[in-house]
Amino acid sequence: MKLEQKSREELGIFLTQYLSEFEALKAKDINLDLTRGKPSSKQLDLSVGLDSVLEENYINVNGVDTRNYGGLDGLVEAKQLFAPVLGVAPDEILIGGNSSLTLMYQYLNLATFFGANGPGSDWMGEGNPKFICPVPGYDRHFTICESLGLEMIPVPMTDQGPDMDAIFKLVKKDVSIKGLWCVPKYSNPTGVTYSREVVKLLAELPKVAGKNFRIMWDNAYALHDFEDELVIAPLLELAKKEGTQDSVVMFGSTSKVSFAGAGIGFMSASPSNLEFFKKYLSVQTIGPDKVNQWRHVKFFRDIVGLRVHMKKHAEIIRPKFQVVFSKLEELGELGIGGWLPTKGGYFVSFETLKGLASKIITLCGECGVKLTPAGSAFPYKNDPDDTNIRLAPSFPEISAIEEAMNVFVCCVKLASVQKLLESK
Amino acid sequence: MKLEQKSREELGIFLTQYLSEFEALKAKDINLDLTRGKPSSKQLDLSVGLDSVLEENYINVNGVDTRNYGGLDGLVEAKQLFAPVLGVAPDEILIGGNSSLTLMYQYLNLATFFGANGPGSDWMGEGNPKFICPVPGYDRHFTICESLGLEMIPVPMTDQGPDMDAIFKLVKKDVSIKGLWCVPKYSNPTGVTYSREVVKLLAELPKVAGKNFRIMWDNAYALHDFEDELVIAPLLELAKKEGTQDSVVMFGSTSKVSFAGAGIGFMSASPSNLEFFKKYLSVQTIGPDKVNQWRHVKFFRDIVGLRVHMKKHAEIIRPKFQVVFSKLEELGELGIGGWLPTKGGYFVSFETLKGLASKIITLCGECGVKLTPAGSAFPYKNDPDDTNIRLAPSFPEISAIEEAMNVFVCCVKLASVQKLLESK
Repeated sequence: MKLEQKSREELGIFLTQYLSEFEALKAKDINLDLTRGKPSSKQLDLSVGLDSVLEENYINVNGVDTRNYGGLDGLVEAKQLFAPVLGVAPDEILIGGNSSLTLMYQYLNLATFFGANGPGSDWMGEGNPKFICPVPGYDRHFTICESLGLEMIPVPMTDQGPDMDAIFKLVKKDVSIKGLWCVPKYSNPTGVTYSREVVKLLAELPKVAGKNFRIMWDNAYALHDFEDELVIAPLLELAKKEGTQDSVVMFGSTSKVSFAGAGIGFMSASPSNLEFFKKYLSVQTIGPDKVNQWRHVKFFRDIVGLRVHMKKHAEIIRPKFQVVFSKLEELGELGIGGWLPTKGGYFVSFETLKGLASKIITLCGECGVKLTPAGSAFPYKNDPDDTNIRLAPSFPEISAIEEAMNVFVCCVKLASVQKLLESK
Repeated sequence: MKLEQKSREELGIFLTQYLSEFEALKAKDINLDLTRGKPSSKQLDLSVGLDSVLEENYINVNGVDTRNYGGLDGLVEAKQLFAPVLGVAPDEILIGGNSSLTLMYQYLNLATFFGANGPGSDWMGEGNPKFICPVPGYDRHFTICESLGLEMIPVPMTDQGPDMDAIFKLVKKDVSIKGLWCVPKYSNPTGVTYSREVVKLLAELPKVAGKNFRIMWDNAYALHDFEDELVIAPLLELAKKEGTQDSVVMFGSTSKVSFAGAGIGFMSASPSNLEFFKKYLSVQTIGPDKVNQWRHVKFFRDIVGLRVHMKKHAEIIRPKFQVVFSKLEELGELGIGGWLPTKGGYFVSFETLKGLASKIITLCGECGVKLTPAGSAFPYKNDPDDTNIRLAPSFPEISAIEEAMNVFVCCVKLASVQKLLESK
């Protein structure tokens, strides 16, 4: 029974009830945090064996001493391990340090100021570069754009991926749009996985775009299925058919596979793109930490090893999301919120009634439940409708998630009934 | 007996003798490399214990789970370990990833394009930024400048450090000079350690310089004494007395302490500098690899542990340099070369007679001995007198160094006698 169909009197009764629930929750000494998209200790425990896996043997199968300098683009064995994660060949990948975010920043720094295709191809040289940002999206992507002076243009997400009609229209009419962000699988925070049709359109997009266009394909949750493996369409392969492969740059990492702070980041791009990037990279580093790469190779062995490992993550994470979804059900029945029942990734993206996200986040805060600040998933932190709340249930224990969700559900109900009463 | 004092006839006899030695060496199947300033396997073996030191215990003494996200400026325990290396307090240091070169690049990228003192302080905004480069120096420093568009001004090194008179004159008359490179201890490649007087003058230098001046103090060989510990004057402390501490940025790493590719880089600067840098850094990374930092803390424990460890390095490296110096003696007696008998670091910088460096390097190459290309230690790879050759004896075995040095000595003699004959 939808709340908005209730009479003023009925809503008044609900308000009294929700207020009393809210006051009771506020009186409890709750201190919980649903802001952090980070793995729990139990998940990290799955990889403790990384520490001793080398048995003090640092020479890899090709005779390379992983302890010494050299190897700007990473160990061959690490390329073989991680290439299938991005669906590419081992010679189409570069293995970096502990952060794919760093690789993304570096790539965009190169493209913006120095030129991803060499001197003269820098975006800044062309004037006022812009970047398309599907929303809601990953706040750190947007922070990179802002810091580099790339003007962000938000485009809405659909349940199939970003709104490609809107994107084609924008890109066709403005050559200063230099690219877009994509999180193709279990997108942060919506949980949307891009349909084959969307990926195909993305492969075609650079043909109508201005020079040096780049699709920043952050496949952060490539392996992060809760249940069956979900296969996304191979962007680089499709792009090769369209002749647009130089516009595709793909990223991944083991931050949520092995250790969040001590994993391996990697990226894939066309040979030409990789050459320019390596030249740029060679100025600022002699090479990545190959010992840690070698550890990961020894520990996971191959893509099968990675998938087996991810099943263990799923066992830990799935029940946490189930708690969130089951608690949200009531809000769905009341018609005061929307979300996608995502089957992987790290987030649930909740849509409130118009204009309530900030208020609900504040109310939760008053009850001791910390949520990601309103607007975080939007460029310039501006959620124009103030409806989006990102929930991150991976880190806390299940009992804490239950308690935090009780608070959340109560605050959504309270704020919603107040709004509905005001409009009656 | 100096070669230049010989008669034309005597020189002719030497020429015949050197030519026959050269041909004999060329006929041997030599394949040696004195180009790489990297540690040998034996040195790397000193740190194999890093791999198992954690015993799968990733929680540090403050309860931080080193495996997870967080801690942009590194572990507190790592700050305590490495602060004494740079002679600063633990709250004056930031601990990074596996490369101090990366920190240097990032710092200069910030200063050049974004502003090390926040928006509006970027060097590019002021016009045509320039950087002083003591020569001969470290090629990777110069490559960073070139890539960022910082015009390099070479200044000669003396045996006390860079020529401070020349530097003061340059800086006073040109506010677009934005800083200088320093390798204060066992400088790459000269081996010079800066005198207290030079360091004092460096602390005063920013007072006569333009806005946002920075001393890039790359203390790469802080712990790398062959014999007794050589203490350099504390730049940051002296700068504080002069009120110039915001112009000082210091760097160090364990690349040549633990593992060259998998060590820890760190930097020190004033609180204000560190704040701006952390803000810049937060855009491109969630944090460094704290697990590796924690490994280093457990393995080395404290500065005493580091010093004990470096004594073992010295035992391996000292005899290699002794071979180089003893082989060079003959060239000194003949008056056809100069060098400093350095007591630490990784390089020997050899000065040929004018205009002979390229030729000698080519001759060595013909005999199968690879040397660093001529000009490498100069901005834009331009050694105006063509006299500098960098020798790097750390990596090869002693027998290989002996053989390579025999070739080197022969080629220096041959090229020198040819030149002297031409001028007679």
